Amino acid sequence: MIVWGIVGWKNAGKTTLVERLVAELAGRGLTVSTLKRSHHAVGLDRPGTDSHRHRLAGAHEAILVSGGGWALFHAGAEPDLAALIDRLEPVDVVLAEGWKRGAHPRIEVWRPETGVDPMALTDPGIRAVAAPGAVPGLERPVLPLDEAARVADHMLGPG
Amino acid sequence: MIVWGIVGWKNAGKTTLVERLVAELAGRGLTVSTLKRSHHAVGLDRPGTDSHRHRLAGAHEAILVSGGGWALFHAGAEPDLAALIDRLEPVDVVLAEGWKRGAHPRIEVWRPETGVDPMALTDPGIRAVAAPGAVPGLERPVLPLDEAARVADHMLGPG
Repeated sequence: MIVWGIVGWKNAGKTTLVERLVAELAGRGLTVSTLKRSHHAVGLDRPGTDSHRHRLAGAHEAILVSGGGWALFHAGAEPDLAALIDRLEPVDVVLAEGWKRGAHPRIEVWRPETGVDPMALTDPGIRAVAAPGAVPGLERPVLPLDEAARVADHMLGPG
Repeated sequence: MIVWGIVGWKNAGKTTLVERLVAELAGRGLTVSTLKRSHHAVGLDRPGTDSHRHRLAGAHEAILVSGGGWALFHAGAEPDLAALIDRLEPVDVVLAEGWKRGAHPRIEVWRPETGVDPMALTDPGIRAVAAPGAVPGLERPVLPLDEAARVADHMLGPG
Protein backbone atom coordinates (compact mmCIF):
# COMPACT_ATOMS: atom_id res chain seq x y z
CA MET A 1 0.00 0.00 0.00
CA ILE A 2 1.13 3.52 -0.70
CA VAL A 3 1.00 5.50 2.54
CA TRP A 4 1.23 9.29 2.65
CA GLY A 5 0.86 11.60 5.58
CA ILE A 6 -0.71 15.02 5.34
CA VAL A 7 0.63 17.42 7.94
CA GLY A 8 0.49 21.12 8.55
CA TRP A 9 -0.24 23.76 11.11
CA LYS A 10 -3.79 24.29 12.30
CA ASN A 11 -6.16 25.76 9.71
CA ALA A 12 -3.68 25.29 6.87
CA GLY A 13 -6.27 23.30 4.94
CA LYS A 14 -5.28 19.70 5.61
CA THR A 15 -8.76 18.22 5.79
CA THR A 16 -9.91 19.89 2.60
CA LEU A 17 -6.86 18.60 0.76
CA VAL A 18 -7.40 15.07 2.08
CA GLU A 19 -11.04 15.21 1.01
CA ARG A 20 -10.04 16.31 -2.52
CA LEU A 21 -7.28 13.71 -2.72
CA VAL A 22 -9.70 10.94 -1.77
CA ALA A 23 -12.09 12.04 -4.50
CA GLU A 24 -9.25 12.42 -7.02
CA LEU A 25 -7.70 9.01 -6.30
CA ALA A 26 -11.05 7.21 -6.12
CA GLY A 27 -11.97 8.88 -9.40
CA ARG A 28 -8.93 7.22 -10.96
CA GLY A 29 -10.24 3.83 -9.87
CA LEU A 30 -7.91 3.45 -6.90
CA THR A 31 -9.09 2.30 -3.49
CA VAL A 32 -8.30 4.77 -0.73
CA SER A 33 -8.64 4.70 3.04
CA THR A 34 -7.95 7.48 5.48
CA LEU A 35 -6.83 7.97 9.04
CA LYS A 36 -7.35 11.17 10.97
CA ARG A 37 -5.91 12.09 14.31
CA SER A 38 -7.82 14.69 16.22
CA HIS A 39 -6.26 16.51 19.13
CA HIS A 40 -9.54 17.39 20.72
CA ALA A 41 -11.81 14.67 22.03
CA VAL A 42 -14.36 13.88 19.36
CA GLY A 43 -17.29 11.75 20.43
CA LEU A 44 -16.53 8.63 18.43
CA ASP A 45 -19.67 6.78 19.33
CA ARG A 46 -23.16 8.07 19.92
CA PRO A 47 -24.32 7.93 23.53
CA GLY A 48 -27.30 5.61 23.75
CA THR A 49 -26.31 3.35 20.89
CA ASP A 50 -25.85 -0.29 21.75
CA SER A 51 -22.17 -0.18 20.84
CA HIS A 52 -21.76 2.68 23.27
CA ARG A 53 -23.60 0.76 25.98
CA HIS A 54 -21.44 -2.29 25.36
CA ARG A 55 -18.23 -0.30 25.68
CA LEU A 56 -19.41 1.41 28.84
CA ALA A 57 -20.11 -2.04 30.28
CA GLY A 58 -16.46 -2.90 29.69
CA ALA A 59 -16.19 -4.25 26.16
CA HIS A 60 -12.71 -4.02 24.66
CA GLU A 61 -14.07 -3.41 21.17
CA ALA A 62 -17.60 -3.10 19.80
CA ILE A 63 -18.71 -3.48 16.19
CA LEU A 64 -22.02 -2.01 15.11
CA VAL A 65 -23.45 -3.19 11.79
CA SER A 66 -26.20 -1.25 10.14
CA GLY A 67 -27.62 -0.73 6.69
CA GLY A 68 -24.82 0.44 4.45
CA GLY A 69 -21.82 -0.26 6.59
CA TRP A 70 -20.33 -0.99 9.95
CA ALA A 71 -18.19 0.69 12.57
CA LEU A 72 -15.66 -0.64 15.04
CA PHE A 73 -15.16 1.29 18.27
CA HIS A 74 -12.04 0.79 20.31
CA ALA A 75 -11.45 2.36 23.70
CA GLY A 76 -8.06 2.74 25.26
CA ALA A 77 -4.56 3.95 24.62
CA GLU A 78 -3.76 5.26 21.18
CA PRO A 79 -1.78 2.81 19.05
CA ASP A 80 0.91 4.03 16.68
CA LEU A 81 0.11 4.73 13.05
CA ALA A 82 1.52 1.44 11.75
CA ALA A 83 -0.70 -0.56 14.10
CA LEU A 84 -3.75 1.39 12.97
CA ILE A 85 -2.91 0.88 9.31
CA ASP A 86 -2.74 -2.84 10.04
CA ARG A 87 -6.40 -2.66 11.04
CA LEU A 88 -7.45 -1.44 7.58
CA GLU A 89 -8.37 -3.66 4.68
CA PRO A 90 -5.74 -3.58 1.95
CA VAL A 91 -6.22 -0.63 -0.39
CA ASP A 92 -4.11 1.12 -3.00
CA VAL A 93 -3.51 4.35 -1.10
CA VAL A 94 -3.68 5.29 2.59
CA LEU A 95 -3.82 8.95 3.59
CA ALA A 96 -2.99 9.73 7.21
CA GLU A 97 -3.78 13.21 8.48
CA GLY A 98 -2.24 14.49 11.67
CA TRP A 99 0.77 12.28 12.40
CA LYS A 100 3.73 14.65 12.30
CA ARG A 101 6.34 11.97 13.02
CA GLY A 102 7.04 8.53 11.64
CA ALA A 103 8.79 6.77 8.78
CA HIS A 104 6.01 7.45 6.25
CA PRO A 105 6.51 10.16 3.63
CA ARG A 106 4.53 13.31 4.26
CA ILE A 107 3.19 16.28 2.38
CA GLU A 108 2.88 19.52 4.28
CA VAL A 109 0.03 21.90 3.65
CA TRP A 110 1.36 25.41 4.14
CA ARG A 111 0.08 28.94 3.64
CA PRO A 112 2.23 32.02 4.12
CA GLU A 113 -0.57 33.87 5.87
CA THR A 114 -0.36 31.51 8.84
CA GLY A 115 2.83 33.37 9.73
CA VAL A 116 4.77 30.25 10.73
CA ASP A 117 7.65 28.65 8.87
CA PRO A 118 6.97 25.43 7.01
CA MET A 119 7.75 22.33 9.06
CA ALA A 120 9.46 21.04 5.93
CA LEU A 121 12.45 23.28 6.65
CA THR A 122 13.35 21.11 9.62
CA ASP A 123 11.65 17.79 8.83
CA PRO A 124 13.24 15.69 6.07
CA GLY A 125 10.26 13.30 6.20
CA ILE A 126 8.23 15.96 4.42
CA ARG A 127 8.85 15.22 0.76
CA ALA A 128 6.85 18.07 -0.73
CA VAL A 129 4.83 21.09 0.30
CA ALA A 130 1.39 21.93 -1.03
CA ALA A 131 1.04 25.69 -1.02
CA PRO A 132 -0.77 28.45 -2.90
CA GLY A 133 2.54 29.82 -4.22
CA ALA A 134 6.28 29.76 -3.71
CA VAL A 135 7.78 28.57 -0.44
CA PRO A 136 10.88 30.65 0.34
CA GLY A 137 14.01 28.72 1.22
CA LEU A 138 12.63 25.26 0.42
CA GLU A 139 14.58 22.91 -1.82
CA ARG A 140 11.84 20.36 -2.25
CA PRO A 141 8.88 20.15 -4.65
CA VAL A 142 6.14 22.70 -4.14
CA LEU A 143 2.75 21.51 -5.36
CA PRO A 144 -0.26 23.71 -6.08
CA LEU A 145 -2.53 23.38 -3.05
CA ASP A 146 -5.67 23.93 -5.09
CA GLU A 147 -4.86 21.21 -7.64
CA ALA A 148 -5.43 17.87 -5.97
CA ALA A 149 -4.63 16.11 -9.24
CA ARG A 150 -1.07 17.46 -9.16
CA VAL A 151 -0.67 16.43 -5.52
CA ALA A 152 -2.03 12.97 -6.38
CA ASP A 153 0.41 12.69 -9.29
CA HIS A 154 3.26 13.37 -6.90
CA MET A 155 2.00 10.74 -4.45
CA LEU A 156 1.76 8.11 -7.16
CA GLY A 157 4.98 9.12 -8.88
CA PRO A 158 8.42 7.54 -8.60
CA GLY A 159 9.14 9.55 -5.45
CA MET B 1 -11.80 -17.05 21.28
CA ILE B 2 -15.11 -18.15 22.73
CA VAL B 3 -17.91 -16.85 20.49
CA TRP B 4 -21.55 -16.79 21.56
CA GLY B 5 -24.51 -15.35 19.78
CA ILE B 6 -27.42 -13.73 21.57
CA VAL B 7 -30.65 -14.00 19.61
CA GLY B 8 -34.31 -13.45 20.30
CA TRP B 9 -37.40 -11.73 19.06
CA LYS B 10 -37.68 -7.97 19.20
CA ASN B 11 -37.93 -6.51 22.70
CA ALA B 12 -37.06 -9.79 24.38
CA GLY B 13 -34.22 -8.10 26.23
CA LYS B 14 -31.16 -9.04 24.18
CA THR B 15 -29.25 -5.80 24.55
CA THR B 16 -29.74 -5.65 28.30
CA LEU B 17 -28.48 -9.21 28.64
CA VAL B 18 -25.44 -8.48 26.46
CA GLU B 19 -24.67 -5.41 28.53
CA ARG B 20 -24.87 -7.41 31.76
CA LEU B 21 -22.78 -10.24 30.30
CA VAL B 22 -20.06 -7.83 29.26
CA ALA B 23 -19.92 -6.39 32.76
CA GLU B 24 -20.03 -9.86 34.33
CA LEU B 25 -17.27 -11.30 32.13
CA ALA B 26 -15.08 -8.19 32.34
CA GLY B 27 -15.56 -8.29 36.10
CA ARG B 28 -14.04 -11.77 36.07
CA GLY B 29 -10.95 -10.39 34.38
CA LEU B 30 -11.81 -11.65 30.91
CA THR B 31 -11.51 -9.50 27.79
CA VAL B 32 -14.76 -9.18 25.90
CA SER B 33 -15.73 -7.64 22.58
CA THR B 34 -19.19 -7.32 21.09
CA LEU B 35 -20.87 -7.19 17.71
CA LYS B 36 -24.36 -5.87 17.19
CA ARG B 37 -26.42 -6.07 14.05
CA SER B 38 -29.11 -3.50 13.73
CA HIS B 39 -31.95 -3.90 11.25
CA HIS B 40 -32.70 -0.23 11.07
CA ALA B 41 -30.16 2.17 9.66
CA VAL B 42 -28.23 3.66 12.53
CA GLY B 43 -26.06 6.63 11.70
CA LEU B 44 -22.66 5.08 12.30
CA ASP B 45 -20.68 8.23 11.81
CA ARG B 46 -21.51 11.79 12.70
CA PRO B 47 -22.21 14.05 9.75
CA GLY B 48 -19.61 16.80 9.65
CA THR B 49 -16.81 14.79 11.21
CA ASP B 50 -13.68 14.40 9.14
CA SER B 51 -14.12 10.65 8.90
CA HIS B 52 -17.60 11.23 7.53
CA ARG B 53 -16.28 13.73 4.99
CA HIS B 54 -13.56 11.29 3.94
CA ARG B 55 -16.04 8.51 3.37
CA LEU B 56 -18.39 10.76 1.44
CA ALA B 57 -15.45 11.66 -0.80
CA GLY B 58 -15.06 7.97 -1.62
CA ALA B 59 -12.81 6.48 1.06
CA HIS B 60 -13.13 2.74 1.49
CA GLU B 61 -12.50 2.92 5.21
CA ALA B 62 -11.83 5.80 7.57
CA ILE B 63 -10.22 5.66 11.00
CA LEU B 64 -10.77 8.52 13.42
CA VAL B 65 -8.46 8.73 16.42
CA SER B 66 -9.36 10.90 19.35
CA GLY B 67 -8.63 11.14 23.04
CA GLY B 68 -9.54 7.85 24.63
CA GLY B 69 -9.96 5.67 21.60
CA TRP B 70 -10.52 5.30 17.90
CA ALA B 71 -13.19 4.24 15.48
CA LEU B 72 -13.05 2.57 12.09
CA PHE B 73 -15.89 3.29 9.66
CA HIS B 74 -16.50 0.96 6.76
CA ALA B 75 -19.06 1.63 4.05
CA GLY B 76 -20.42 -1.04 1.80
CA ALA B 77 -21.95 -4.46 1.75
CA GLU B 78 -22.31 -6.28 5.03
CA PRO B 79 -19.70 -8.99 5.57
CA ASP B 80 -20.60 -12.22 7.32
CA LEU B 81 -20.09 -12.61 11.04
CA ALA B 82 -16.83 -14.56 10.72
CA ALA B 83 -15.27 -11.84 8.60
CA LEU B 84 -16.28 -9.21 11.14
CA ILE B 85 -14.87 -11.22 14.03
CA ASP B 86 -11.59 -11.37 12.11
CA ARG B 87 -11.47 -7.59 12.33
CA LEU B 88 -11.46 -7.65 16.14
CA GLU B 89 -8.39 -7.85 18.30
CA PRO B 90 -8.10 -11.24 20.01
CA VAL B 91 -10.12 -11.37 23.22
CA ASP B 92 -11.35 -14.10 25.53
CA VAL B 93 -15.04 -13.84 24.69
CA VAL B 94 -16.96 -12.43 21.73
CA LEU B 95 -20.69 -11.73 22.07
CA ALA B 96 -22.61 -11.29 18.82
CA GLU B 97 -26.13 -9.92 19.04
CA GLY B 98 -28.50 -10.28 16.13
CA TRP B 99 -27.10 -13.01 13.88
CA LYS B 100 -29.78 -15.68 13.90
CA ARG B 101 -27.88 -18.05 11.60
CA GLY B 102 -24.36 -19.39 11.53
CA ALA B 103 -22.15 -22.06 13.02
CA HIS B 104 -21.61 -20.23 16.31
CA PRO B 105 -23.50 -21.39 19.42
CA ARG B 106 -26.34 -19.14 20.45
CA ILE B 107 -28.39 -18.31 23.51
CA GLU B 108 -31.95 -17.19 22.95
CA VAL B 109 -33.55 -14.55 25.10
CA TRP B 110 -37.21 -15.42 25.41
CA ARG B 111 -40.18 -14.13 27.37
CA PRO B 112 -43.57 -15.81 27.33
CA GLU B 113 -45.37 -12.47 27.15
CA THR B 114 -44.02 -11.85 23.67
CA GLY B 115 -46.56 -14.45 22.54
CA VAL B 116 -44.24 -16.17 20.06
CA ASP B 117 -42.65 -19.58 20.36
CA PRO B 118 -38.97 -19.77 21.21
CA MET B 119 -36.76 -20.03 18.12
CA ALA B 120 -34.91 -22.75 20.02
CA LEU B 121 -37.73 -25.18 19.22
CA THR B 122 -36.68 -25.20 15.58
CA ASP B 123 -33.02 -24.07 15.72
CA PRO B 124 -30.50 -26.59 17.06
CA GLY B 125 -27.80 -23.90 17.02
CA ILE B 126 -29.48 -22.41 20.09
CA ARG B 127 -27.81 -24.23 22.96
CA ALA B 128 -29.76 -22.67 25.82
CA VAL B 129 -32.59 -20.25 26.47
CA ALA B 130 -32.44 -17.36 28.93
CA ALA B 131 -35.94 -16.80 30.24
CA PRO B 132 -37.69 -15.53 33.35
CA GLY B 133 -39.16 -18.98 34.01
CA ALA B 134 -39.85 -22.36 32.45
CA VAL B 135 -39.87 -22.78 28.68
CA PRO B 136 -42.58 -25.31 27.74
CA GLY B 137 -41.53 -28.08 25.41
CA LEU B 138 -37.82 -27.28 25.41
CA GLU B 139 -35.25 -29.98 26.11
CA ARG B 140 -32.29 -27.70 26.47
CA PRO B 141 -30.92 -25.73 29.43
CA VAL B 142 -33.04 -22.82 30.61
CA LEU B 143 -31.01 -20.08 32.30
CA PRO B 144 -32.40 -17.35 34.54
CA LEU B 145 -32.61 -14.24 32.36
CA ASP B 146 -32.00 -11.90 35.28
CA GLU B 147 -28.85 -13.68 36.44
CA ALA B 148 -26.08 -12.81 34.04
CA ALA B 149 -23.61 -14.73 36.19
CA ARG B 150 -25.48 -17.97 35.50
CA VAL B 151 -25.61 -17.24 31.78
CA ALA B 152 -21.89 -16.44 31.82
CA ASP B 153 -21.17 -19.71 33.65
CA HIS B 154 -22.97 -21.57 30.88
CA MET B 155 -20.99 -19.75 28.20
CA LEU B 156 -17.68 -20.56 29.85
CA GLY B 157 -18.67 -24.10 30.79
CA PRO B 158 -17.77 -27.34 29.04
CA GLY B 159 -20.70 -26.91 26.67
